[in-house]
Amino acid sequence: MPPPADLGRALCVITGASRGFGRAVALDLCRLVQPGSALVLVARSGADLRAVQAELTESEAGRAGLKVEVVAADVGKLESLENIVRTSRDVFNDEMEKIILINNAASLGDVSKYVKGFTDMAEVDAYLSLNVSSAMCLTARLLQAFPAHAGLRRCVINVSSLCALQPFRSWGLYCTGKAARDMMFKVLAEEEPELRVLSYSPGPLDTQMQVEARTKTADPSIKKTFSNMFAQGQLLTCEASSAKLMKLLLEDKFTSGEHVDVFDV
Amino acid sequence: MPPPADLGRALCVITGASRGFGRAVALDLCRLVQPGSALVLVARSGADLRAVQAELTESEAGRAGLKVEVVAADVGKLESLENIVRTSRDVFNDEMEKIILINNAASLGDVSKYVKGFTDMAEVDAYLSLNVSSAMCLTARLLQAFPAHAGLRRCVINVSSLCALQPFRSWGLYCTGKAARDMMFKVLAEEEPELRVLSYSPGPLDTQMQVEARTKTADPSIKKTFSNMFAQGQLLTCEASSAKLMKLLLEDKFTSGEHVDVFDV
Repeated sequence: MPPPADLGRALCVITGASRGFGRAVALDLCRLVQPGSALVLVARSGADLRAVQAELTESEAGRAGLKVEVVAADVGKLESLENIVRTSRDVFNDEMEKIILINNAASLGDVSKYVKGFTDMAEVDAYLSLNVSSAMCLTARLLQAFPAHAGLRRCVINVSSLCALQPFRSWGLYCTGKAARDMMFKVLAEEEPELRVLSYSPGPLDTQMQVEARTKTADPSIKKTFSNMFAQGQLLTCEASSAKLMKLLLEDKFTSGEHVDVFDV
Repeated sequence: MPPPADLGRALCVITGASRGFGRAVALDLCRLVQPGSALVLVARSGADLRAVQAELTESEAGRAGLKVEVVAADVGKLESLENIVRTSRDVFNDEMEKIILINNAASLGDVSKYVKGFTDMAEVDAYLSLNVSSAMCLTARLLQAFPAHAGLRRCVINVSSLCALQPFRSWGLYCTGKAARDMMFKVLAEEEPELRVLSYSPGPLDTQMQVEARTKTADPSIKKTFSNMFAQGQLLTCEASSAKLMKLLLEDKFTSGEHVDVFDV
C-alpha cells in the first residue's frame, strides 16, 4: 500500500522555524497538510519569522486557508512555552485529526573550547536549559493541552544529530545535549504507547550552525572535516533533509522512540 | 602480569561520599592507596560526612597517615566547586603520582510522574544542573587545577547507570541525566588522550535511592520490578559493587570513555 499523499488535517508546532532546517520543515508541512490545518511557528527572531509567515500565507496552501501563527519567543523561557501552548489552543479546532510537534530549536554551544574549559556552571546550565529542559517542558505542556483521544493522532519529532550517538572533540555541550534529548524522547515513547516519537538526525546541513562549526571548532581535525565537507559540496540542503523527514512522517512506519538518520531514509 | 596490589600515592576526590556507594568507594580507596595519599570527601550532609571521616581517620590507613579532608557542600553550587578544588590543592603534594575523581553525587529526580508531567522548567533545570553541569564543571576545574604532566596519572570516574543506555518508564530525569553524563565523558575521553575516563554502572544497589525507586516510581511494572529485586535479594551491596570498581581501577585496562557495567566485571 502506498503511503498517504498528505498528513491530514493537522496542527503543526515548529520551534526554530525562522531559518535553516526549521524553515524548510515549515514549508514542507504547509504543502503536505490538508486545508483546515494550522502551523504555529516559533523563533527568537521576529523579523525572520514574519518573513516565513508571509511566504506561507501567500503560498497555495495559505491562499486555501492554512492558518499560520507565529510566536516570537525564546523557547528557553517559561513564558514562551505558555505563549506557544496558548497560541496552539487558539488555532486548534475539533476538525483537526493530528498534532505534530517539531522540537527543532537548538544552539551549538561554545565549540571553541574543550570539556575541560567548561568551568562555569551558569554557561552549562543555560545550554542545557535551552536545549534539553525547554524541549521536555514544551512537549509535556503540549501533550497535556491536547490529551490523547480516539480521534487525535499525536506525533513528536526530536531534531537530533549524529552527535547524540558519537562523541566529537570540542563539541561537548552539543553532544551532551543531543544525547540527553534522545534518551528523554525514548523514555517518553515507552511511557505513551499511542504517541509517535521520532528522533531524526538531519545530517550535516548547509546552515549557519555549520558556518560556526567550521570556523570556531577548537579541535583542528574536526574543524578540517567540516571545512572539507563544505568545500567538497557534501553538506545537505535543508530542503533535501526535510524531504526525508516528510517521507518518514507520511509512511509512519518508524518505531516510536527510535533514532533515524537522514542517510538511512 | 598480575595487576598492581595498590593504586599508588594518590589524591582521591569523591562526591556523594557520606553514604551508599560513595561511602563504600571511600572506604575501599582508603585501603588501596599508599601512605602519603589523601582523600577529599564531598557531601551535603556534614554530620554523615564527618562520621565517614572519623571512620577513615581511625582505620589502619588513617593511623598510617592518610589525610582525609571533608567538604560539606552541595555540588550543584559554584562556591562548592571552588571549595572542593581549594581543598584538593591544599592536600596535594608533589609526591603524589595519581589523581582519581569519582563523580558519584546524584539525585533520582521525581519518579512519581512521567515525562509528560514535567512542565516546570525550573525543576528540570535544577535536576540537570545538579546531575550534569556540576559533574562537568567539577571535572573541568580539577583538570585545570592539576594539569597533565609526566609524573601524574589522572583518572575520572563517572558513576553511571543502566539508565544511561536504556529508557525506563517514569525515570525520565534520571535516564536523561545519565545519558547526558555518559556522552559528556565520552567527549572528554576523546579530547584528553592521557586521561583515563570510565563510566561505571554500579548495578541495582541496596541504597536509599532504591527505597525511593520501589516506593515512588509511577509506572506499576517498573515499580514492581524493583520491589521484586529487593524481596528476592537481587540488589547488590555497595561494598560488592565498589570492589568491582576497584578491580577496574587496579587492572587499568578499560578503554577510556567506555561504559562498563558491574555485571561485566
